[in-house]
Amino acid sequence: MSPPSSSTINGSGDPAPAVRVLGFSPSPFVTRVLVALKLKGVEYELLEEKVGTKSELLLRSNPIHKKVPVLLYHGKPISESLIIVEYIDEVWASNGAPAILPRDPHDRAVQRFWAQYIDDKIPPAIRVLRSVDIAEEKEKAVGELSTTLQYLEEAFVKCSQGKNYFGGDNIGYLDIALGGLFGWIKAVEKLAGVKLFEEAKVPNLISWADRFRVHPAVMDVLVDADILVDLTLKYITLFKALDLGLPVEFGKLAQNLN
Amino acid sequence: MSPPSSSTINGSGDPAPAVRVLGFSPSPFVTRVLVALKLKGVEYELLEEKVGTKSELLLRSNPIHKKVPVLLYHGKPISESLIIVEYIDEVWASNGAPAILPRDPHDRAVQRFWAQYIDDKIPPAIRVLRSVDIAEEKEKAVGELSTTLQYLEEAFVKCSQGKNYFGGDNIGYLDIALGGLFGWIKAVEKLAGVKLFEEAKVPNLISWADRFRVHPAVMDVLVDADILVDLTLKYITLFKALDLGLPVEFGKLAQNLN
Repeated sequence: MSPPSSSTINGSGDPAPAVRVLGFSPSPFVTRVLVALKLKGVEYELLEEKVGTKSELLLRSNPIHKKVPVLLYHGKPISESLIIVEYIDEVWASNGAPAILPRDPHDRAVQRFWAQYIDDKIPPAIRVLRSVDIAEEKEKAVGELSTTLQYLEEAFVKCSQGKNYFGGDNIGYLDIALGGLFGWIKAVEKLAGVKLFEEAKVPNLISWADRFRVHPAVMDVLVDADILVDLTLKYITLFKALDLGLPVEFGKLAQNLN
Repeated sequence: MSPPSSSTINGSGDPAPAVRVLGFSPSPFVTRVLVALKLKGVEYELLEEKVGTKSELLLRSNPIHKKVPVLLYHGKPISESLIIVEYIDEVWASNGAPAILPRDPHDRAVQRFWAQYIDDKIPPAIRVLRSVDIAEEKEKAVGELSTTLQYLEEAFVKCSQGKNYFGGDNIGYLDIALGGLFGWIKAVEKLAGVKLFEEAKVPNLISWADRFRVHPAVMDVLVDADILVDLTLKYITLFKALDLGLPVEFGKLAQNLN
């Protein structure tokens, strides 16, 4: 649709841009969508949802799940992060934009398999480590996350075939699926006081993560783990203070972190 | 790979056929794969797993989940039913075989969205209604299933645009995703003594189901709800009798049902 260029976030009275994302910066699922758009060089407008409330546009665009991210392309909404990433890959398939999914059907199926595995295993464990105070449950979540990362270490070796990314020479579907969650995995390491990325166990994943987070399509949209840690801690305090009631703009909240 | 023809199930000493499915006939996820292969006119060999045990080939082919279905194409395994269905669509994309996913990226994303919704909502509810004896939990599952079917009724109207199937003139991805589960939804209606397909609430889905189950790609592979009901009841008795221990061949079990 558009030539590679930096994304724009504008709040002017111009007509709505072709691509809008209903998002919330700390969401790992929103990160996936933004990385995919950056990778394709698609300009977009990010509309930040406010903490503790849901916009009219979000409710109308994703009436089933009422969750971010939603991608609006010429006003037509698509929901669910991995589905959006595939959609982006299909809509911006030409003009020299890098492919997100590999061409070979078997390789595509393998990447879809691992992406589904990631979504089955990692977000539930993050949720437990971020919020649950029961030691037994936390221990279980740490065990599951460690096992998951070890399987992904093996998957990386097979998929990358000695190259830099799951996708080979450039980041692809599985890089985006796992990479979007990277900040939160690092954040729960700090919050729960555990070590998940152990050099002895997942050396290739650690190197991959170091490359992923400084990739041009990633570096501006990946939220730093320290920010997520602060946000989690302030969130808890804030929500308690507000008795879980009043809406608070994430923008204001984020300002408080600096 | 092959011209349209009927599938073959052979147990001869010939070299392994190009397409093999590790399956278990009552599994709704296996049904999806078989319908997709039939639709494409792909010959396959179905290798039935035995009840209460897992074959060496299954454990080797799907070491992460250890579950059917697995599709083996020239020996290379693919797991997870919806991923297999997409894989089939991509591998057998030409030679006049009908497309499973629509061509338009937006339409594809919409079908993927609903398929994911189906997998989030329907199998867990079926599991509860098939096995849990707590009235409160059953009531909740019935409520969730009814809501899900009503959303799918609306989705059908939008996707089919007045035609016979979610996929339009022929069955497609979403028909396969929901249709594979159809027998089990009817079975739990009987097992739990509830009405899920109500004419007043989901008239279009009821008509769709009547067409789906007699479609040439479906009629030979869809397991009848009465069989599933009998199987569930006999399963419970049988597994209790065997103290959940000994492996029992599904073939023998199935013979007992007639």
